[in-house]
Amino acid sequence: MSQATGNRAMLESLFRPRSVAIIGASQNLQSISGRPIRYLREHGFQGSIYPINPKYDSIAGEPCYPSIKEVPEEVDVAMVAVNYKMVPQVLEECAAKGVKHAILFTAGFAEAGEEGEKMQEQVMELARRSNMRILGPNCQGVVDLYSGNASSFSASLEIKPLLKGSVGYVTQSGALGYSIFNLAQEMGVGFSGIASTGNEADLNSLDFIEYYLEDEHTKVILAYLEEVENGKRFQELAHRALQKGKPIICLKVGSSDVGQKAAASHTASMVSSDTSYEAVFKQKGVIRVGGVKEMIHMALLVERINNMPDGTNLAIVTTSGGAGILLADEASRLKLEVPELDQATQENIGQYIPDFGSTLNPVDVTAQVINEAEGFQKVLTSLTEYPHIDAIIIVISMIYGESGKMMAEDVVKAFHQVDKPIVVTWPAGDQLMWDNLKILEEGNVPWYKFPEEGINALGKLMQYRSFCLKYQSETGVQSVKPPDREKLAPLLAKDEDNTISEYYSKKLLSLSDIPVNRCELASSSQEAVKQAQDIGLPVVLKVDSPKISHKSDVGGVKLNLSSAAEVEKGYEEIMRNLQKQSLDSLINGIMVQEMVKGGTETIVGVKNEPKFGPLVMFGLGGIYVEVLKDVAFRFAPLSPREAQEMVEEIRAYKVLQGVRGEEPRDIKALIDALVKISHFAYEFENEVGQLDINPLVVLPEGQGVKALDALVIKH
Amino acid sequence: MSQATGNRAMLESLFRPRSVAIIGASQNLQSISGRPIRYLREHGFQGSIYPINPKYDSIAGEPCYPSIKEVPEEVDVAMVAVNYKMVPQVLEECAAKGVKHAILFTAGFAEAGEEGEKMQEQVMELARRSNMRILGPNCQGVVDLYSGNASSFSASLEIKPLLKGSVGYVTQSGALGYSIFNLAQEMGVGFSGIASTGNEADLNSLDFIEYYLEDEHTKVILAYLEEVENGKRFQELAHRALQKGKPIICLKVGSSDVGQKAAASHTASMVSSDTSYEAVFKQKGVIRVGGVKEMIHMALLVERINNMPDGTNLAIVTTSGGAGILLADEASRLKLEVPELDQATQENIGQYIPDFGSTLNPVDVTAQVINEAEGFQKVLTSLTEYPHIDAIIIVISMIYGESGKMMAEDVVKAFHQVDKPIVVTWPAGDQLMWDNLKILEEGNVPWYKFPEEGINALGKLMQYRSFCLKYQSETGVQSVKPPDREKLAPLLAKDEDNTISEYYSKKLLSLSDIPVNRCELASSSQEAVKQAQDIGLPVVLKVDSPKISHKSDVGGVKLNLSSAAEVEKGYEEIMRNLQKQSLDSLINGIMVQEMVKGGTETIVGVKNEPKFGPLVMFGLGGIYVEVLKDVAFRFAPLSPREAQEMVEEIRAYKVLQGVRGEEPRDIKALIDALVKISHFAYEFENEVGQLDINPLVVLPEGQGVKALDALVIKH
Repeated sequence: MSQATGNRAMLESLFRPRSVAIIGASQNLQSISGRPIRYLREHGFQGSIYPINPKYDSIAGEPCYPSIKEVPEEVDVAMVAVNYKMVPQVLEECAAKGVKHAILFTAGFAEAGEEGEKMQEQVMELARRSNMRILGPNCQGVVDLYSGNASSFSASLEIKPLLKGSVGYVTQSGALGYSIFNLAQEMGVGFSGIASTGNEADLNSLDFIEYYLEDEHTKVILAYLEEVENGKRFQELAHRALQKGKPIICLKVGSSDVGQKAAASHTASMVSSDTSYEAVFKQKGVIRVGGVKEMIHMALLVERINNMPDGTNLAIVTTSGGAGILLADEASRLKLEVPELDQATQENIGQYIPDFGSTLNPVDVTAQVINEAEGFQKVLTSLTEYPHIDAIIIVISMIYGESGKMMAEDVVKAFHQVDKPIVVTWPAGDQLMWDNLKILEEGNVPWYKFPEEGINALGKLMQYRSFCLKYQSETGVQSVKPPDREKLAPLLAKDEDNTISEYYSKKLLSLSDIPVNRCELASSSQEAVKQAQDIGLPVVLKVDSPKISHKSDVGGVKLNLSSAAEVEKGYEEIMRNLQKQSLDSLINGIMVQEMVKGGTETIVGVKNEPKFGPLVMFGLGGIYVEVLKDVAFRFAPLSPREAQEMVEEIRAYKVLQGVRGEEPRDIKALIDALVKISHFAYEFENEVGQLDINPLVVLPEGQGVKALDALVIKH
Repeated sequence: MSQATGNRAMLESLFRPRSVAIIGASQNLQSISGRPIRYLREHGFQGSIYPINPKYDSIAGEPCYPSIKEVPEEVDVAMVAVNYKMVPQVLEECAAKGVKHAILFTAGFAEAGEEGEKMQEQVMELARRSNMRILGPNCQGVVDLYSGNASSFSASLEIKPLLKGSVGYVTQSGALGYSIFNLAQEMGVGFSGIASTGNEADLNSLDFIEYYLEDEHTKVILAYLEEVENGKRFQELAHRALQKGKPIICLKVGSSDVGQKAAASHTASMVSSDTSYEAVFKQKGVIRVGGVKEMIHMALLVERINNMPDGTNLAIVTTSGGAGILLADEASRLKLEVPELDQATQENIGQYIPDFGSTLNPVDVTAQVINEAEGFQKVLTSLTEYPHIDAIIIVISMIYGESGKMMAEDVVKAFHQVDKPIVVTWPAGDQLMWDNLKILEEGNVPWYKFPEEGINALGKLMQYRSFCLKYQSETGVQSVKPPDREKLAPLLAKDEDNTISEYYSKKLLSLSDIPVNRCELASSSQEAVKQAQDIGLPVVLKVDSPKISHKSDVGGVKLNLSSAAEVEKGYEEIMRNLQKQSLDSLINGIMVQEMVKGGTETIVGVKNEPKFGPLVMFGLGGIYVEVLKDVAFRFAPLSPREAQEMVEEIRAYKVLQGVRGEEPRDIKALIDALVKISHFAYEFENEVGQLDINPLVVLPEGQGVKALDALVIKH
């Protein structure tokens, strides 16, 4: 049994248990420990329900047991709603009974301080020992809409019936998370399941994302996240979701905790707590939403459409010119194309559109389109037949009564007839327009009141799908040969402390097939002169030592030495400077380096993020990184496409393409270097904590790149 | 009578007429030309209603007249709903009757091509001749909610009663505009008036903004704009709005390329680039919204609060931890402060907050706060008493039933008791939560379903108010002495063509007290040598001619000449180069210029925007402007604060503050120069079409700025 299958079977018994117990059950069915009994019944749960409380004989007609030990049947899930001090004892009993899952509603654990933390550890120890899985503590439970298992006390379950559908939802916030569920249900979004994970002592959000990935009822995964337990697993799950084409829509909060320090160019200073998440979202096509509303809107769209859009070409159809402008603005913001229609399509739709309308895109059908039988429907189907259109968005304004009804009916017919998504926005109040909106709602058409909201959801989905299709097409593409571990390992063991000196850092790069400028290590001025002549003048001299980080500050650098005499003199001067500061005993020697002129300085860095792995940073040197923070991030290893996306993502990308009369830079070589750097970082992620190449000079087209300085810091 | 008062009186008779006629009235009260009669009655219009149609004797019980001439009373407003070919004749009759305002519903004018354009001009000629004002054509009329004047055919008027309030609304889109009105009404936003302006042949959006500025019922102005007729008047009105503290909330569409095309084909007028609008919005505190929803949300907030916030310090109050994180993220995005509470306030609110809550900001009161009598209300009042809090935002999650009711009641009490705004967000569906939400709604509390929407509206208002208070405090501040017109005028008349050569352009700057590098004009090498010695070596030689724009390309520039001999040689070389190309006859002479070293190159430009006036641009030189488009715009004249905002607005601002070991630049002198440049551009806006100073070198602190090159282009 694979891990994934194991996870699925395990959570299957949480979502669809044969029997459920409520420990600490109350006879007050309005209270937190009374509601679950009522909710399980009201939502049609078919398994056994066992209230547990020594105080009562029965609750709501069900026999009540003094402890779980007395329950005559096996118990799959036990909800625990007792005081936190009683939790260990209750769980011991659960374990003894062979309960598969305990859902701990009880708060006061790790979220409440040191004592609670200890208690949580105690609970986990017990769980591990007994092979019982824990959801929570401090959570609001799970709901499976298909089996009616409402193992939760959330008041959102007061609504009956719940709307079944294809959204699988996991939330790290209990109260807000279920509020979102309630709102989404009222907005017409059907769910397959919900899980509130609380403190995530054991089961965590990723377990549920994995479950939904395999769940046949689930077409789209919704996640409200504050932090994930395991960034690598998150990447792996997001990868699988992309492969399957099952979107993950994520509201990730906690991004404002930005720990960026002022002007410093090393990678670590550019990474905030949000950087890793943002990198995963971009790299693995997770749809990040900015708020609750957008999250629900995206879910509604994916849930309702019969076919996904296959690109970013949008047709805008309006009944009034004004709305077309608004949507065209939004399309531009969302980086969608609003392509011109070909002559045939224009003529086709022109049959139904009066002269004062427009057959251009945005198409203005005017309110009169419905005077022609099925005119509107025919316009919509014609548009979807044009291959350069991937989806349609419609804005209908003040068209009410019979005309509005016909329009809505036409849309519903077209929506189910064509194989491209149609989204409707109809900005008008329910009081006036519900008769028409209801037709859309009952026709399961994705519709929105506000034009900007409809196009935003559709646009984000179109971008996601473009990315997804590109990603899927790359499956099986040969990856880069990993660096030779045997050759590199001794170098990584070299220095005693964590810092590897420039000379050996560059050796590591060079052995990983990443171009560096020529660089030798001299122990005497004579040796330096010989090496300089070998490399070719002019050269640079630089002290090499893992202990000296600011080489210029200690007088350890001499630039542009263009004769043997200058090299000899430079060498002696550096040595004298070091001797004066008693630094001469700390050095590996003096580096003699090829002097590289021209090109554009870039910075490539790697920071090994604790939960996520090696995060690669790219930006242009100097001001661009330090002041403008104009950098791109992705996790190693990078594919060439990903490296290219990083390069193109920075605002200063045009500088590399050649501006102000300068030649274009060797972007191909840069991409290649980024890929190789990422593979080095990936291969040695257990050894390398940080890598800074500053600068990596990108020479004119055809001349490659060269790392002029590098620093590897071990864990 | 001032223009403003005149405008007000004139529009007063449009909004609150004593009598209204509908020309082309229909007996079908569901049709476009039948509805207005019904709407006027249904919304309680007290004036006379005169249907005009030769086909009928009466409509809906009112006597119907064959033409307006037959109407026994004076007619203030005539709605025109006849075929566009009949419009001129109908308007002639209106004019003869002395009708004050004609509202032209009829389409087919300037928006429909050349013939319609001619017809529109004909209509305007008639209107001017007869002193009759025209609204439209191609508009949907006006509504005054206080007098019940519903002179419109929009189906949004089917809703009864309309919600009176303090939002004055003008829209350039008829159908979408009234849809927005309908949505806003259903969302609980009360209006004072609405005007749909259509093609704006005569009355335009700005006339209505001005009207609402003075209208006592109107507390906030809402505008849906595609384009304004007169950018200067828009600035002036926005200035007056700021002075009065009456916010203008504006949805300006047509900012994208596609959008602009659509706008051009729709409104029969060219769309200005978005830059001018954005500059006005920033400079004059117009609240720009990104969509329909945000527009309504902002209006709702301003309409409901009793007191405006006085700063950007926010208290976040939640009933669950999760929502606090979400709101803290949003606060950071909106650049709001979430200040720590002092000890006294923490102790105060701590009385009502259980231990597992939090008295820090975000404050987590937990669901139990309502167990204490009026506990929640007391927490809220305590928070507003802390002077470093300007407003409160509350998120209540799944608290329903009796507890929810108490919470809502507490909020309503606090809301009306304190003098700082309180905004509530309550993410839950109506089916579950309406009993509580209704309490907020009836209590006139601004509340939102989605946390991010509530904080967004509040945050934007807080930013607006901070700006407004700063702006108001500057009233009467002495402005810069304008440049001496007498001295400068001859220079502006100098060259025959529109381009003024560098030498004279810099003279203009210099006479306007804007620092330039020393610069003399030589006619011989001897003169050049003498001037160079006077200026101080090294110097730069540059040809001066209005005909030669690329001086280097023609061999007309010599840099860094550091001896008399070099200057002499340089002069001769330039002359030879020019002679070879037969350019020597086109020159004013050869400039001898002070060579300025160091400092940071900036670019200051002015472009005289047709409707708006001189638009000032600022950015750093080279890549920053060309590649990164890192520039700021404001209209001339600039106050020192505005110039400072421009400087601080660019992303590369830190470069001027001094990075990478460089000294800070003379930002004070830069601001001073920007102000003076703007005053030059403002004073000579009728003469100067464009000005480019590239570079304006900003020297280290205390050393000032110097314009090294300048180009003035006349209209």
